[in-house]
Amino acid sequence: MSCWVASFSDVFSVAYQILMTGFGYSASDAIKTASVLVDADLKNIPSHGVSRLPMYKEHMEQGYIKTKSTPMIVKETPISIVVDGQHGPGCMISEFCIEKMQKKLVDSGVVFCSVFNSNHFGIAGYWSEALAGTDNIGIAMTNTHRACVPTFGREKVLGTNPLAVAFPLGKGNMFSLDMATSVVSFNKLEVCRDRHFPIPENWIANEEGRSTTDLNSFFRHFARACGGLYPLGGPNMMYGGHKGFGLNLLVELLCSSLSQGVPSFCTFDEGTSGISHFFAVINIEAFGPASAIIDHANNVLSQIKSTDKMETMDRIYIPGEKEFESRERGMKEGIQLDSSTKDMLLKFCADYDIEKPSFKERK
Amino acid sequence: MSCWVASFSDVFSVAYQILMTGFGYSASDAIKTASVLVDADLKNIPSHGVSRLPMYKEHMEQGYIKTKSTPMIVKETPISIVVDGQHGPGCMISEFCIEKMQKKLVDSGVVFCSVFNSNHFGIAGYWSEALAGTDNIGIAMTNTHRACVPTFGREKVLGTNPLAVAFPLGKGNMFSLDMATSVVSFNKLEVCRDRHFPIPENWIANEEGRSTTDLNSFFRHFARACGGLYPLGGPNMMYGGHKGFGLNLLVELLCSSLSQGVPSFCTFDEGTSGISHFFAVINIEAFGPASAIIDHANNVLSQIKSTDKMETMDRIYIPGEKEFESRERGMKEGIQLDSSTKDMLLKFCADYDIEKPSFKERK
Repeated sequence: MSCWVASFSDVFSVAYQILMTGFGYSASDAIKTASVLVDADLKNIPSHGVSRLPMYKEHMEQGYIKTKSTPMIVKETPISIVVDGQHGPGCMISEFCIEKMQKKLVDSGVVFCSVFNSNHFGIAGYWSEALAGTDNIGIAMTNTHRACVPTFGREKVLGTNPLAVAFPLGKGNMFSLDMATSVVSFNKLEVCRDRHFPIPENWIANEEGRSTTDLNSFFRHFARACGGLYPLGGPNMMYGGHKGFGLNLLVELLCSSLSQGVPSFCTFDEGTSGISHFFAVINIEAFGPASAIIDHANNVLSQIKSTDKMETMDRIYIPGEKEFESRERGMKEGIQLDSSTKDMLLKFCADYDIEKPSFKERK
Repeated sequence: MSCWVASFSDVFSVAYQILMTGFGYSASDAIKTASVLVDADLKNIPSHGVSRLPMYKEHMEQGYIKTKSTPMIVKETPISIVVDGQHGPGCMISEFCIEKMQKKLVDSGVVFCSVFNSNHFGIAGYWSEALAGTDNIGIAMTNTHRACVPTFGREKVLGTNPLAVAFPLGKGNMFSLDMATSVVSFNKLEVCRDRHFPIPENWIANEEGRSTTDLNSFFRHFARACGGLYPLGGPNMMYGGHKGFGLNLLVELLCSSLSQGVPSFCTFDEGTSGISHFFAVINIEAFGPASAIIDHANNVLSQIKSTDKMETMDRIYIPGEKEFESRERGMKEGIQLDSSTKDMLLKFCADYDIEKPSFKERK
């Protein structure tokens, strides 16, 4: 399959203008949202990149995203804030939270933030990494639309509920775990559908709760109550499906219960999406000199990386490593987009009278 | 297989006396350790129950556990403590940490604790639940001996690194997740070996890193560098093995790097075990009235529980639910132990001149 390459600045600029000129985002909200989307493309997570723009438009048109709203702190203690997102753009709300948290962190060494009435905030890892900075542990989680079945259940009452944790490793480097608590992300399924890739057993349940590989039927009947993704660990307890289910519920409780917001199974209902998030930041100086802790962590991880590989593998990857290398490449060599994403961007440019980015084909 | 039943108080009392009279624990350390072990038996996690006593004895004889030592706080901030366990009994050290944390929590609303130079602390869930109490989120993690291989690796450089989180649900009830970040716990493998149960593919790797079901060979060659448990999610990325690997590393960084302690791959070496833990407690009042948050959480969980089940299943279990029901039963009807555990207790009673508990056989 051929793909198309444009420079980082071109893709960023076109996404920013589409959001501002086309969708009516404020300049600063458009900049933040474009940053989050392009970061996903740079990290080779195209499902959460600029390809998301039509979804954001749809969410605006359906009234889920209200661009003119302002988030509001409804509770504050020295170590926490609770934020009513007022249904604004998820990236704008998250940026608001992160800024407040960073200010509070100076005094307290740790800040938690729970958020309700928000929207899709892009990749969770963007926010955990933003919080981590040079010497903090950053944590970001979100609930999502209904997608996943409980262990032993068959109704899609759970979100894919990703959790992301970033741990600083010095010199701008990080350990960065960003994972859906479902066995695969929802977007991986969409990619498989769009590219007609077959999927293995034990990714998704049919309406009886049993494993199926019929992805078309899964999407065709997605609005029905039953059928859904399995949690990490699969359909039952043999490979730890109950652990994935437990992690998924934990994310749900931290996001929607702490903020008294809308649980995954009630999102995108009654005219609001009602997405909830949970953020945390902890300064590692609370445990010792940051440099000593970072040296220790680097030593642990590099020793693990240097151990013997399976015969067919030449490398052990630390969470985040692949993504950071991809980002570095993308900044130099440009961002790869598939044909449909390129066409979508060009269509938006035509619709909103925005200068078209320059794409080169790469076979 | 027949099993043996003794009352809670008999099992507790005999474990306590063995630890004190036999192993030389102080009265208070023996009480705490017996409480943790018997709690595991009550919860039907016999692998971490009184059957562990011989392991504790062995760890003492090998010099890993030093009963006469006193844990020491080496760093303290308003929101954190770092504890040098001084190689004492893991349950004693953990109890020391939990008490300090509960005192500090009154002022700060959140406390973290990282611990180095500790030992086996029983089930992680005991400590997360103790921290949670009526209106806190409690978190407990530990690194362990070498047992698990990295994704794409084949050396056992990771622990099984369990993580436990308890979230209060009111009236003494809790959401309580307690999971090894390996695909199954090490002790489940021991149970399968002892009872000659076959194991499925994709639990353990042979020395080439490939899936094997030869459990005897696995244990026979356990001291070798290669071969080990796979992380949660299995041997590769198809079912999210890289997520389990990421969670496992996260536990490692929070336990051994924050405390600058011994990583899993260096434990039980040079005369010390060097186990590290990480604890956290967060008062949920930081986010709103505890009663409202607890009501919300109960509502979310009960709605999920009430959804349609798979045809062959009659119930969806929330993490901790099975264990708490088992504990309630055990308190009334007695604790079930297998023959070898019963014989081990009776042998210790004879050796240390302790009054034997009364066992009844249950077919």
